[in-house]
Amino acid sequence: MTEATTTTTTTGPTTGGQRQLSVGMIGYAFMGAVHSHAWRSAHRFFDLPLQPRMSVVCGRDAAKVEQAAATMGWQESETDWRRMIERDDVDLVDICTPGDTHAEMAIAALAAGKHVLCEKPLANSVEEAERMAEAAAEAATRGVRAMVGFTYRRVPAIALARKLVGDGRLGEVRHVRAQYLQDWLADPSSPLSWRLDKTKAGSGALGDIGAHVIDLTQHILGDTIGEVSGQLETFVKERPVATDSAGLSATAGTERGPVTVDDAAVFIARFTGGALGVYEATRFATGRKNAIRIEINGSLGSLAFDFEDMNVLHFHDATIDDEEGGFRRIVVTEPGHPYVGAWWPPGHGLGYEHGFTHQVVDLMRAIAADTDPSPTFADGLQVQRVLAAVETSSETRAWQTITG
Amino acid sequence: MTEATTTTTTTGPTTGGQRQLSVGMIGYAFMGAVHSHAWRSAHRFFDLPLQPRMSVVCGRDAAKVEQAAATMGWQESETDWRRMIERDDVDLVDICTPGDTHAEMAIAALAAGKHVLCEKPLANSVEEAERMAEAAAEAATRGVRAMVGFTYRRVPAIALARKLVGDGRLGEVRHVRAQYLQDWLADPSSPLSWRLDKTKAGSGALGDIGAHVIDLTQHILGDTIGEVSGQLETFVKERPVATDSAGLSATAGTERGPVTVDDAAVFIARFTGGALGVYEATRFATGRKNAIRIEINGSLGSLAFDFEDMNVLHFHDATIDDEEGGFRRIVVTEPGHPYVGAWWPPGHGLGYEHGFTHQVVDLMRAIAADTDPSPTFADGLQVQRVLAAVETSSETRAWQTITG
Amino acid sequence: MTEATTTTTTTGPTTGGQRQLSVGMIGYAFMGAVHSHAWRSAHRFFDLPLQPRMSVVCGRDAAKVEQAAATMGWQESETDWRRMIERDDVDLVDICTPGDTHAEMAIAALAAGKHVLCEKPLANSVEEAERMAEAAAEAATRGVRAMVGFTYRRVPAIALARKLVGDGRLGEVRHVRAQYLQDWLADPSSPLSWRLDKTKAGSGALGDIGAHVIDLTQHILGDTIGEVSGQLETFVKERPVATDSAGLSATAGTERGPVTVDDAAVFIARFTGGALGVYEATRFATGRKNAIRIEINGSLGSLAFDFEDMNVLHFHDATIDDEEGGFRRIVVTEPGHPYVGAWWPPGHGLGYEHGFTHQVVDLMRAIAADTDPSPTFADGLQVQRVLAAVETSSETRAWQTITG
Amino acid sequence: MTEATTTTTTTGPTTGGQRQLSVGMIGYAFMGAVHSHAWRSAHRFFDLPLQPRMSVVCGRDAAKVEQAAATMGWQESETDWRRMIERDDVDLVDICTPGDTHAEMAIAALAAGKHVLCEKPLANSVEEAERMAEAAAEAATRGVRAMVGFTYRRVPAIALARKLVGDGRLGEVRHVRAQYLQDWLADPSSPLSWRLDKTKAGSGALGDIGAHVIDLTQHILGDTIGEVSGQLETFVKERPVATDSAGLSATAGTERGPVTVDDAAVFIARFTGGALGVYEATRFATGRKNAIRIEINGSLGSLAFDFEDMNVLHFHDATIDDEEGGFRRIVVTEPGHPYVGAWWPPGHGLGYEHGFTHQVVDLMRAIAADTDPSPTFADGLQVQRVLAAVETSSETRAWQTITG
Repeated sequence: MTEATTTTTTTGPTTGGQRQLSVGMIGYAFMGAVHSHAWRSAHRFFDLPLQPRMSVVCGRDAAKVEQAAATMGWQESETDWRRMIERDDVDLVDICTPGDTHAEMAIAALAAGKHVLCEKPLANSVEEAERMAEAAAEAATRGVRAMVGFTYRRVPAIALARKLVGDGRLGEVRHVRAQYLQDWLADPSSPLSWRLDKTKAGSGALGDIGAHVIDLTQHILGDTIGEVSGQLETFVKERPVATDSAGLSATAGTERGPVTVDDAAVFIARFTGGALGVYEATRFATGRKNAIRIEINGSLGSLAFDFEDMNVLHFHDATIDDEEGGFRRIVVTEPGHPYVGAWWPPGHGLGYEHGFTHQVVDLMRAIAADTDPSPTFADGLQVQRVLAAVETSSETRAWQTITG
Repeated sequence: MTEATTTTTTTGPTTGGQRQLSVGMIGYAFMGAVHSHAWRSAHRFFDLPLQPRMSVVCGRDAAKVEQAAATMGWQESETDWRRMIERDDVDLVDICTPGDTHAEMAIAALAAGKHVLCEKPLANSVEEAERMAEAAAEAATRGVRAMVGFTYRRVPAIALARKLVGDGRLGEVRHVRAQYLQDWLADPSSPLSWRLDKTKAGSGALGDIGAHVIDLTQHILGDTIGEVSGQLETFVKERPVATDSAGLSATAGTERGPVTVDDAAVFIARFTGGALGVYEATRFATGRKNAIRIEINGSLGSLAFDFEDMNVLHFHDATIDDEEGGFRRIVVTEPGHPYVGAWWPPGHGLGYEHGFTHQVVDLMRAIAADTDPSPTFADGLQVQRVLAAVETSSETRAWQTITG
Repeated sequence: MTEATTTTTTTGPTTGGQRQLSVGMIGYAFMGAVHSHAWRSAHRFFDLPLQPRMSVVCGRDAAKVEQAAATMGWQESETDWRRMIERDDVDLVDICTPGDTHAEMAIAALAAGKHVLCEKPLANSVEEAERMAEAAAEAATRGVRAMVGFTYRRVPAIALARKLVGDGRLGEVRHVRAQYLQDWLADPSSPLSWRLDKTKAGSGALGDIGAHVIDLTQHILGDTIGEVSGQLETFVKERPVATDSAGLSATAGTERGPVTVDDAAVFIARFTGGALGVYEATRFATGRKNAIRIEINGSLGSLAFDFEDMNVLHFHDATIDDEEGGFRRIVVTEPGHPYVGAWWPPGHGLGYEHGFTHQVVDLMRAIAADTDPSPTFADGLQVQRVLAAVETSSETRAWQTITG
Repeated sequence: MTEATTTTTTTGPTTGGQRQLSVGMIGYAFMGAVHSHAWRSAHRFFDLPLQPRMSVVCGRDAAKVEQAAATMGWQESETDWRRMIERDDVDLVDICTPGDTHAEMAIAALAAGKHVLCEKPLANSVEEAERMAEAAAEAATRGVRAMVGFTYRRVPAIALARKLVGDGRLGEVRHVRAQYLQDWLADPSSPLSWRLDKTKAGSGALGDIGAHVIDLTQHILGDTIGEVSGQLETFVKERPVATDSAGLSATAGTERGPVTVDDAAVFIARFTGGALGVYEATRFATGRKNAIRIEINGSLGSLAFDFEDMNVLHFHDATIDDEEGGFRRIVVTEPGHPYVGAWWPPGHGLGYEHGFTHQVVDLMRAIAADTDPSPTFADGLQVQRVLAAVETSSETRAWQTITG
C-alpha cells in the first residue's frame, strides 16, 4: 500500500488524435452526482467522437464545491457561474440547478459560445422558455448546441417503445395514459423545502415530474398534446419550516409556512393526431416510489411501461390470433435493443443512472456531427406550454389549447 | 341409462318451513344466463332466509324463450313482460334487458307490488332514473324493494377494499384512478349492434362500463363524485351494418351506418370529500379484455385492483417501516374474506359469475329483513347523474357539478 | 311470496328425446360439494349428449346425508354405498371419499355395470390401483367406463398448454419444473386429521397434491416420467389430537399424536422423452395457498402457469426475434380457448369449480360416444407408480425406475 | 473544444491523508469490464478507508490489453501475470480469468503478499480450491486478504433477504427453491466456446451459474448444504467448432466438436439445519435471460426474489392475519436498505454492475479493518464441494454427503 497523493494521473481511453470536449457543471446535488457519473462513464462503454473532460464544477459554497469536485471527479471548482462560463477550458455548460436559474445561465452560456445541457423542466415559465429557445436557435446558427435533460427518453425500454410506435406496430394511437407517482410528501409533517416554493421551483408535482411524462408520451408518439383540461391540488397547505435557512434540510422546526406549489396534478388531453390522454403527477401516491407508468393503446397493438420495473416493456401485438395473444414481457436487455449493446449480457439489467450516460453519448454525437441534439430547447418550450396550459385550465375550469 | 323425461323432480335444499320467493326474469341473453346461474346456485352455498324459485322467464320470441327456459332452468316462459309482472307466481322481477326499457318495466313491476332487480345502468337518462328512484322510494313504504345490479361490488376483493377504506386503513383518501378497458371495438370492421345505437343503449363505453367504475369507486370510498370534466370520443364514426335487422348479429354486410354512442370516455373528477379522481372507459384498449382497474391512494395506505386478476387485492400499509413496506398481494380466498367462506378452501379462486350469486344472496337477505338492498335505485340515479355530467361537460368543455 | 314446499318441479333443459344418465355420489364433503355443483351446472352451459340426473347421494350419517342431498340438489340419499351401486336409478357412481375406500367401491361399481368417476389419487397403493385398472379395462369391454378425477387438466389454461406442446410450439422439451405449494400445516399447533393418517390418506403432500402436478405435467407433455430421485419429509412429527374421534375437527385437544404421512416431498425426474423434471409438493410454503406452478422449457418456446392466477398462461415463442420476444401473458378467456366458448365474454374469468364442470362434460361425451374418458384408471395407476417410486427412492436414497 | 492529449490529470476524491491501494487486474473481457467500472466508481459514492488506484491490467495480447487499459481506465498494461504480481505498485490482484487459472494465480499472488479478489467459481476442482483456501488462511496470518467474487450477495434485495432471515423473520426455514435460468445455448447451432470445454471451464451450467445460487441460498440462510442428489445433462452433445482457434468466436464453421460440460444441472438438497432444497441451473430455459430465482419458506414467513426484477424482494409475513396477509413487494431502493443510501432516491433502481461496486466497498473496508472479507476462499471451497457432490451424485445415482 502506498500513501495517496491528491492528484493521480490517468491514461485517457483513446489515443492522441481524438478531440476532447471540456465540461463545466453548475450544481452538485442529486442531479450533479448523476450527471458526474455519466460524464465519467460514457466513454468507458461507448465509442464517442468527442471525449468529455470534466474540467470544473461550480457552486456557491467554496469548501463544499471543492469537496464535490474531489468526490465526483472534477479537476477544479468555481464559485461564480459567470466566471465559469467564460473559461477557455469549458466547451459545454451542464446546468443542474433549480429551475429559476436556468434561463439566465443557459442564455449567457450560449452567448459565450458554450454548448448547453440544461436540466428539466427547461424553465419556470413559458416566457423564460421562449427566450431560451430563441437563444438556442440563434446559437445553433453558430454551431453551438443546446439540449434539455429529459433523460428518461434514454431508458432502453422507452427508446424501444418509441421505435415500435414509429414502425407503425401500434397502428393508429387512440389512448395514452401516463402517471408519475411518488409518495414523499404524503406525510403532512414533512418539512418545507425549495421544491415547495413557487418562486424557486416554478411548480410542484406538475413541473417536477409531470413534465417527464408529458415529454415521454409526446416523444414515444412523435406527436404533441394540443389541448388539456386539468386540476391542480395542494392537499397539505402548510408545513413545518425546515431548520436551515436554505430550506434544504429535512429537519422540521416548530414554525409553519405555506406550500405554494401543487402537490398533485391531473389532466385529460387531446393529441394533435387525435389520441386521448389521461395524465397524473403526484407526490401523494402512498407506496409508489418513482412509478413512471405509461400505457399506449393503438389500433394494432399496445404498450405498457413502469419505471419501477425499468428494464421491461410490455407489448401487445393485436395482429396475433386472440387465442395466442397477450401482453409480451420484453426484457429490454438484448444486444439489439437501444443502447444495450454497450453494456452487459441479456438479463443483466441497467439502473436509473444509465439514462444519463446515454444522454452524454447522444449529446457528444450530435455536437460532433454538428446537428441539434434531441430534445432541443424548442422541445422543452413545448412541454413548458403544456404545463402552463394545465395550470391555466385548472384556474379557468375549462379546456385550454396549446399554441406556439 | 334411462330415457329422459322433460321434467325432473328435485328436492329443495331446505325443509318445509322455509319461505320461497318466486322470480320472473325478463331477457335471456348474456345477462340472463349469468343471472340464471346465480338464481340456481345461491341457496346451494349460502344459508338464505328466502329460497329463490325460478318461475318464469320472459322474451319476445316464443320458441327461443321456451328453449332458454329449458336451458337455464326456468319452469315456464312468457312473451309479454306486462303479463308476467302480474302473475301471482312472480314475487320479484329481474330485468336483464337493454337500458331503454328499464324505466317502464321497473316502475310497472314496483307498482304491481313486485320486488325488482334491475341491470345497470339504471336507465338511459337522468329523467328516467329519477322516476325510477321515486317509484322505488314509494314502493319501499309498502315493503317492496328495488336493487340495481352493480355486481362487481360483490367481488370479494372489492368488498375487502371497501372494508379496508371503511376501517380507516387508508387514512384520508387523496387519489382515485379507475379504468375500465376493453378492446372489442378496436377493429373498425366490427359491425354495428344495438350497443352502438344511442336510442337503445343510451351511451357507449361511458354508460356500459364507465358506470361500473363510477359505482365501484364511490362504493369503496363511501363518498360521491361532486364534479367532473370529461371528454367523449367516437374513434370509428361509421361501421358496417349487421346483416340481421335487430343488429344482434356479428356478421357485417356492405352497407354502413353511423355509430351514435361514444367509443371511449375520459374524465377527471373531484370527490365531495376532496379526493381527486381520474377515470377512463374504453372499448379500444387493445389487449385489455375486461380490465377493471382501480387504485386508491390515501395518507396511510393504498389499494390496487385489476379484474383480470380478480381474486387479488394489492394493499400498501404506509404505517409499516419503509424498509419492509410494499404492496401486499392479498389472495382474497380466505374463509374470513367477504363471501368466501361459503365457497372453496384458500387459493381456490372464484370467477366472474360469483358476484351475481352474491348479489342474489344479499338481495334475499335484505328482502327477508325488510330493508332496502344496496345499491338502491337512488344509488343508480346518482351514478346516472355522474354519467350525464360527464356527457354535458364533454359538450360544454367545462367542469360540471353533480347535484341532486 | 309463497310458502315453500320441500319439492319443486323443474323443467329440464332439453326436450324429450334426450337420454338421461343417473348419478349416485358417495361422499359429500368438500369434493362432494364441488362435484354436485358440476353435475347441476354442466348441461346449463354445454350441449351434452347425456343429461346428468342427480339421483342419490350416499354417506354414513343418515341425517347429515339427507341434509346434504337437500343442500346440494340430490333427489334422494342413502347410507349404504353397496346398496346404492345396485340401484336401477344409478348409471354412474361418483366416488368422493378418502383414498382407502376407492378400490373396493370402484371395483364393485364397475362389476355392477356402473360407470365410475373416482377422485384422485386413484388409490392408496400401486397394488390397489392395479386391481382398479384391471377392473376398468375389463368393464370397458362391456361398455362400462371409468375416469379418475384429475380435474386441473380441464382448467382452460392447462388445456391450452397441452395444445401448444402438442402442436410442437415448444419444440423438444428440456425442462419441467412443477410445484404444488400450500401452507395450511405450517403452524405446528394445527391438529391431526385423517389427512395426516397414513392408513386413511395413503400419503401426505405427495399423494394429495403432488399427484396433481405429476399428472398435469405428464398430460401437458404427452410423456411419462421414467425415473425419480426424491426425498419425503415430515417437519412436524407430532401434533395435537383433534377433539372429535373422526379427526375431522379443526379443534385441538391437549393430547398429541404422531403424523404418519409426509409434510413435503421433493424429487427430480427424468421423462421417457429425455426432459429433466424438478418437483415439489408441500403444505409448508407459507403464503402460498394453492399455488400449482408449472413451467416448461423447450427448444422453441416455454410455458409458465400458476393456479393462483388460473385464467392466465404465459407463453414464450422463441421463434420471435429477441428484440421483440418475451413471455406473453395470454388471458385464457377467449371463445376459441378450450371450454371457454360456453361461458362468458373475454376477460371474464372462470373459477376453481369450472374444471369439475368440464370434467362432467367430457365424461358425458365419452360415455355417449362409447369411448374411454381421459384420464383413465390406467393413467391413474401410472401416477400411482410415480408416487410409489418417489417414496421408495426416499427410503433407498437412490434413483428409482418407474415400470409398468 | 481542445485537442485531446493522451493523458489527463484528475484530482482525487479525497485529501492527502487518505491511503491508496493499487490494483492489478488479470483479464479484461466481460468480467474485466464490470470490475473496472466498480474500481472506478466505488469511491465516488461510498466513503472508503482505502482509495483504489487502477494501476495495471494484464492480458496476453499486448495491443489488445493496451487498448483495454485505455478504455477501462487503467494506467498501464502488462502481458505477463507473474511479472504483474511482483510489481511494487500492485497491492491487490483482481483475477478475472477462466477457472483453470485461478489456483495458480491466486496462490502466487498471496505468496507475493498481495491481496486477492478472485472471480467465481473459486476453482475447477475441490483439490485446487483446497490449496487456495489453505494459501488464503496462511496469508491472513500475514494480514494479506482473499475474497471470492460471489457479487450477487451484494444486490440490495439479496442483502435484505439475508437480514430478514438473520433477524428470525422467517422462523424455522423449511424450503429453499433456487433456479438460475438462462437460454443462450438452447439453439443447437450455437458454436463451441471455452465455456463448453471441461478442461477450461471445469463444468458447465453447474459451476458457472449453479455456483451462484448455491452460494446465495447458503448465504441468505446462514446455513450450508449437507447432502445432495443430482443429475447433470448435456442436451446437445456436439456443436459446430468456432472459426477461431481460441474458441472465443461466436461464428461457427462446418466442423463439429463435443460438448464436454453439462448444459443443465438439477438437484435436491438437505441443509444442515434441516431445510429441503430444490436447485436448477440451465442454459436451456428459453425466454429466461438471467433469471436467478430464489424462494424461501419458513415457519413465520417467506421470501421470493428474481434477478430479472432485481430491485424487488417479495416478503410474506405469516404473523399478519390471513385476511390481510400476502407477499409484499418491497422495492429495495430506500435509504435504509443495504448499500442503497449511497445511491439515488427511492424508486430509482440499481443495475447489474452495482453488486460489483459494493464488492469493492466491502473489500476495501475489510482490508482497512484488517479482517477477512466475506466470502472468503473457505466459503468458495465449500461451494466447490457442493458442486463436486452434485457431479458425483449424478454419476453414482445416489445421495452424496458434503464433508470438509
